[in-house]
Amino acid sequence: MPRSYTEMENDTRPYVPEPAISRLPWYLACVSRLRAQGVEYVSSTAISKQLNVDASQIAKDLSYLNIKGKTRIGYEVSHLEKELGDFLGFTRSHNAVVMGVGSLGRALVSDSGLSRYGLDIVAGFDTDPEVIGTEIAGVPVYDLDELAGRRQELGAEIAVIAVPVEFAAEVADRCVKAGIKALWNFTPFHIKTSPEITIQNTSLYAHLAVMYNRMNSR
Amino acid sequence: MPRSYTEMENDTRPYVPEPAISRLPWYLACVSRLRAQGVEYVSSTAISKQLNVDASQIAKDLSYLNIKGKTRIGYEVSHLEKELGDFLGFTRSHNAVVMGVGSLGRALVSDSGLSRYGLDIVAGFDTDPEVIGTEIAGVPVYDLDELAGRRQELGAEIAVIAVPVEFAAEVADRCVKAGIKALWNFTPFHIKTSPEITIQNTSLYAHLAVMYNRMNSR
Repeated sequence: MPRSYTEMENDTRPYVPEPAISRLPWYLACVSRLRAQGVEYVSSTAISKQLNVDASQIAKDLSYLNIKGKTRIGYEVSHLEKELGDFLGFTRSHNAVVMGVGSLGRALVSDSGLSRYGLDIVAGFDTDPEVIGTEIAGVPVYDLDELAGRRQELGAEIAVIAVPVEFAAEVADRCVKAGIKALWNFTPFHIKTSPEITIQNTSLYAHLAVMYNRMNSR
Repeated sequence: MPRSYTEMENDTRPYVPEPAISRLPWYLACVSRLRAQGVEYVSSTAISKQLNVDASQIAKDLSYLNIKGKTRIGYEVSHLEKELGDFLGFTRSHNAVVMGVGSLGRALVSDSGLSRYGLDIVAGFDTDPEVIGTEIAGVPVYDLDELAGRRQELGAEIAVIAVPVEFAAEVADRCVKAGIKALWNFTPFHIKTSPEITIQNTSLYAHLAVMYNRMNSR
């Protein structure tokens, strides 16, 4: 029996260029809609029309996946949906801790939607005695000083950095020392760390700035 | 008296490349920290060391601003902080509505941090009778059908799209028809609309996918 992609990803996965990975969730969203509508096969041309992305680009992006479309019929919708979800890591559970449960951190802990995309938030950490020992949407909040001791039992390899920007550097450092492998950084601070740590920056504020600029330069 | 940048931005603003705009909030975060520490002047070299960005890149990015550093002394910290905040649009208020107050939409409405970056969420819209008429963190939730009638009185030019992906296209369309000028799209759906509408995509799920891939390809 051939090994499925899901098994393969337990080892190492091919490095896919970021623009390609970033487009794959669009295709997944499109394909999920089609499945819900009862559509059985879809061509890259049909996806192209729905998403306003070049059909040849779509075919190229999908070539990273372990799936082949049939000539004139296209891809089987439910198979493509599953392969995309597996490839993107959305169908596997990744335990994560949230550092800082202020307004944004609390919001992320409460966002049950993240678990549908494979991110299971198992604990929050903070320094505020008012929130330490409480729960947010069933997720316990611990003292930041307990991170090193609890990281392993929590099985968390991902830390979401949602602390005030002035603490970002120190908290990132503590996460790495505690054994965290990936930092999802929501602060505008440019975290420097060792090359074996994955850093994903999601600066909502940078996106806001770009949006404001575009609105005003039209 | 020379016109300040803040006045200028009420007209049109220069189109700044996205990578440059996206780096400016890093500099702002860095400069705010320095001001809090009582530092009065900073050079691009000093910012470079803190952020791991090339000093010449920083000087080039800052050249978009209406500010000049002094030779050997650098930029005045408090002035640079203010110019960055103004340039990025963070010091002006932009009214916004949130479309869809499910888990992510609710989280964004509750994130009081956004207003520190100029985004004032003035209302939520939804189709669920259970939430219509309620308030989230003091923000009223209205029926989606009331958007066209309420948009102007709310003074909102920005809509945050946080609906389930299958409704993204329709909701974006209704926002544009109601007079919204910019869509901050949190769904993985690739919104197509007319060229005069600003679209900012923030796909948390795409960022998750990139992070998972990077973790597994190391």
